[in-house]
Amino acid sequence: MNSSEHTETDVYGRIQQSGIQFNPEQKPGGIYEPVTVFGDSLCYVSGHNCKVNGVLPHKGRLGQEVTIEQGCEDARQCVVNILTSLHNTIGDLNQIKRIVKVLAFVASSDTFYQQPKVVDAASQLLIDIFGEKAGKAARSAVGVNVLPNNQPVEIEMLIELYTGGKEI
Amino acid sequence: MNSSEHTETDVYGRIQQSGIQFNPEQKPGGIYEPVTVFGDSLCYVSGHNCKVNGVLPHKGRLGQEVTIEQGCEDARQCVVNILTSLHNTIGDLNQIKRIVKVLAFVASSDTFYQQPKVVDAASQLLIDIFGEKAGKAARSAVGVNVLPNNQPVEIEMLIELYTGGKEI
Amino acid sequence: MNSSEHTETDVYGRIQQSGIQFNPEQKPGGIYEPVTVFGDSLCYVSGHNCKVNGVLPHKGRLGQEVTIEQGCEDARQCVVNILTSLHNTIGDLNQIKRIVKVLAFVASSDTFYQQPKVVDAASQLLIDIFGEKAGKAARSAVGVNVLPNNQPVEIEMLIELYTGGKEI
Repeated sequence: MNSSEHTETDVYGRIQQSGIQFNPEQKPGGIYEPVTVFGDSLCYVSGHNCKVNGVLPHKGRLGQEVTIEQGCEDARQCVVNILTSLHNTIGDLNQIKRIVKVLAFVASSDTFYQQPKVVDAASQLLIDIFGEKAGKAARSAVGVNVLPNNQPVEIEMLIELYTGGKEI
Repeated sequence: MNSSEHTETDVYGRIQQSGIQFNPEQKPGGIYEPVTVFGDSLCYVSGHNCKVNGVLPHKGRLGQEVTIEQGCEDARQCVVNILTSLHNTIGDLNQIKRIVKVLAFVASSDTFYQQPKVVDAASQLLIDIFGEKAGKAARSAVGVNVLPNNQPVEIEMLIELYTGGKEI
Repeated sequence: MNSSEHTETDVYGRIQQSGIQFNPEQKPGGIYEPVTVFGDSLCYVSGHNCKVNGVLPHKGRLGQEVTIEQGCEDARQCVVNILTSLHNTIGDLNQIKRIVKVLAFVASSDTFYQQPKVVDAASQLLIDIFGEKAGKAARSAVGVNVLPNNQPVEIEMLIELYTGGKEI
């Protein structure tokens, strides 16, 4: 990401500070749009996986093949992939007013109960990038027995945009 | 469905072309509304099952009792049942501006990883009926270990309507 | 809850009639907001658990450690906890125009198929408090193999508020 012109106060500057790199290789795994814009100023972001350059760094379930540390990396990568899709769709991430809602699915063994700890890695990254007011969203984090391609984490989001340009 | 007066350019014409028949026998399986309309122009569609005339054609989980082909039929039938509910609630399916978001739950064995392939059957039908622009939605498709009545697929949707009548 | 000044016609009067007590001890189990307000008049309520005074009355899965009766109590308690969060966030529950959508996750054994029956306890309480028109929402109720902290039920909601004060 070339963001040499960005400052700490904008989203791209904070993305750079967080050491994130947009995921260059990413395409929907089915017949859907990565992001839809609707209403006056809302965005629904499809469930995103945690692939890095087209490959899942871990496969399987938390509490089984995947450690909490790996799950946290995966949750964080879901956010990176979502930001990539949002950048490609709305053009400027500074148009994001608020992350409204996060829904996170964590592939879990029947006795893994720490889904929130895994998803916190995603939530913290959102706060690092968008700040507490815009980045701290409503959230549900639930376990499921299996996810597409045996990925450990899937995250979708509802987002509010500024209407008529960013407020100052 | 009597749609002899419809043309290929409206939704009912395309429904007829797709060989779909509205499901005459369908009632909510609990204390909820099949569809709520809210805000200026949004609709939330409850999780719909894949019953045909009140009976589940298949029961169980993908990767176990239910084949991918059967799961695709089921996903498609969820859409038929949703369209039936929408027709009954909003009266005219031509008022639908866009399918915003699809959330699909696929009852899956612990080693079934092809939820997107199953749900693609639903997504393709939405595009056949509403066209690519209005019918291709944001989507999450996840596995779960079990669904109500042992149904294989459940789908809910967020939909945007035209405000003040259909734009031309 | 001190609501001696309330009448049967307002939400707090009906809450009192339902024998509900707001949950004094409740904090998010991770990095998220319990409720976000967005758009003109919408609220997303995070997935809430069924703790009473900070403790889960039951743990485990429906169809296994948790009976349907216990699951119904848990679903009802999720609503109590959600109302507590909403009261703390928006200040006046009479500002709620409509419960738009309920998404309920029920921790279930692989052969428990009665998720709707469990979640009906939550839906009925919403109708008791807000009335049929405002309280009967769209809904999905699905099984999952496991939920955070081994809780049996988790419920999230989308809610519409009155804009510019309650209509009369």
